[in-house]
Amino acid sequence: LSCTGCKKKDFVYHRKYSGEKYCKKCFCTSIEKKIARTVSKHQMLSSTDLIVVGLSGGKDSVVLTHLLAQMEKKFPNSKLITVTIDEGIKNYREETIEIVKKITQDWNIENKIYSFKKEFGYSIDDINQIILEKKLDLLPCSFCGVFRRKLLNQAARDLEADKLAIGFNLDDEAQTILMNFIRGDLSRMARIAPKPKKISPKFVPRIRPLREIPEKEIALYAFYKSLPMQSKECPYAFNSLRHNVQSSINLLEEKTPNVKFNILKNLHTINELFQDSEIKSIKNLHDCEKCGEPTSSTLCKACELISILE
Amino acid sequence: LSCTGCKKKDFVYHRKYSGEKYCKKCFCTSIEKKIARTVSKHQMLSSTDLIVVGLSGGKDSVVLTHLLAQMEKKFPNSKLITVTIDEGIKNYREETIEIVKKITQDWNIENKIYSFKKEFGYSIDDINQIILEKKLDLLPCSFCGVFRRKLLNQAARDLEADKLAIGFNLDDEAQTILMNFIRGDLSRMARIAPKPKKISPKFVPRIRPLREIPEKEIALYAFYKSLPMQSKECPYAFNSLRHNVQSSINLLEEKTPNVKFNILKNLHTINELFQDSEIKSIKNLHDCEKCGEPTSSTLCKACELISILE
Repeated sequence: LSCTGCKKKDFVYHRKYSGEKYCKKCFCTSIEKKIARTVSKHQMLSSTDLIVVGLSGGKDSVVLTHLLAQMEKKFPNSKLITVTIDEGIKNYREETIEIVKKITQDWNIENKIYSFKKEFGYSIDDINQIILEKKLDLLPCSFCGVFRRKLLNQAARDLEADKLAIGFNLDDEAQTILMNFIRGDLSRMARIAPKPKKISPKFVPRIRPLREIPEKEIALYAFYKSLPMQSKECPYAFNSLRHNVQSSINLLEEKTPNVKFNILKNLHTINELFQDSEIKSIKNLHDCEKCGEPTSSTLCKACELISILE
Repeated sequence: LSCTGCKKKDFVYHRKYSGEKYCKKCFCTSIEKKIARTVSKHQMLSSTDLIVVGLSGGKDSVVLTHLLAQMEKKFPNSKLITVTIDEGIKNYREETIEIVKKITQDWNIENKIYSFKKEFGYSIDDINQIILEKKLDLLPCSFCGVFRRKLLNQAARDLEADKLAIGFNLDDEAQTILMNFIRGDLSRMARIAPKPKKISPKFVPRIRPLREIPEKEIALYAFYKSLPMQSKECPYAFNSLRHNVQSSINLLEEKTPNVKFNILKNLHTINELFQDSEIKSIKNLHDCEKCGEPTSSTLCKACELISILE
């Protein structure tokens, strides 16, 4: 019953989808190697990149920052900056901002905080209030996702980043793919292809180096490495479509242990098929008529949502 | 609050995904029209077809038989025969066989019964016993699906059928598509394309005329038409992958009411993409080395499964 890696120590983790059994140290090494392989396989980084990392203070973004900081040290012409989005969620975001400040000070990494309230005029708590008052058939999560993506892109561009790194793990990735699937819009899959793409001059290409690591393993890595991180869940999350999709995938995983990897594989097959086909998938973006930020429509989704509030 | 169809009566059913509201009679007409449209859109039938219908005695196959019998009357050179599979499940199948006998006598339709025990040497109850004794990591449902498909094809061929009609409704169809999706094998989607295909001389092309009708509406139609049908659920079904997939889809439907239709749409997109692409999807079948029935491997799935039991 010994570790598959060093063949010496007893194993503490059994990776069911591959059969490997690891001691603490070899488990952490395996995660680091796997992420480095993902980065190189999809040409996510080059040696002179200025990388902006979205650092929320949750386990995924903390692990991502920790690993990218280690990688970045090997490349003297690269640079790392962290960006934190303050959505304005009471009794939730305050804790993470403290964690983010501590981490970035300890690790000697620059951090910038951008807030929804300042940039869009509304915090998520404000939006939730308006939704309740106007009895809108919308979730605060719909605003949060759209606003966060927009603001992260603006921030990364302002900081002149070459890449925007996001702490999406395998579970997040499988959820996004399945969400696109159940919406019946396969052409959107191209937007979540692993290789970073510059689809507009104003768009900073995104990378998701954790996309092949299950959430459980990210949590375990953070625990073994004693990384500081946020403990609370977002108070709005329980009601989102993503939450239902997550429950579904976990239900399916009981019978099909590889389900998350299989879903990831489908993304690649679909994108390959679209490349061969005459059916167009990815559109280049143009500027939103109202705010000038990149969008595929006339108005960007954030401006569209804000108009509902007003 | 009147019926969208006749504009006279009060409505009894609100079809949320389309907004239509129907009285009893107009609801039934809408179902019949929708199925006729599905049949003609995908060229499922021609006027001289000998159609074999898989009639289990459940609501779907009873509704399918009822509707195909009506359609068939209009075509003097067509013929309808029903085939019932007796899987050998105690306290379950006996009731349906009685229903099937009554229906086919009342409606004056030929019926043939084929049994797993006679054709394969094992009933599903036998197989369940062996699984428990040998502690196999398999479900009786895996055998049942494979055996049923094989036997229905053999039966339809013996009866010289041009088409084999199966009572799959929208829910079944969405489940099958999602099951293929979570297995990560998109190329299998071509096998469930709506248009019947002769992929081997020994294979009887299958049609699924109910594929665009939600399960709930099939049940309502059967109820309004007072069709006799089986009331019990299969005692093994609760533990299957399909059951988990069904629960997942129902969970997703809470947030995305069109989810089943969206999943169906994906099937069409994927199959269209495969047609444009150089990646091969559908393989022509050849003969199983053991039993001679059509398969894509050396041994057919049924022979492979039987070898596990022996």
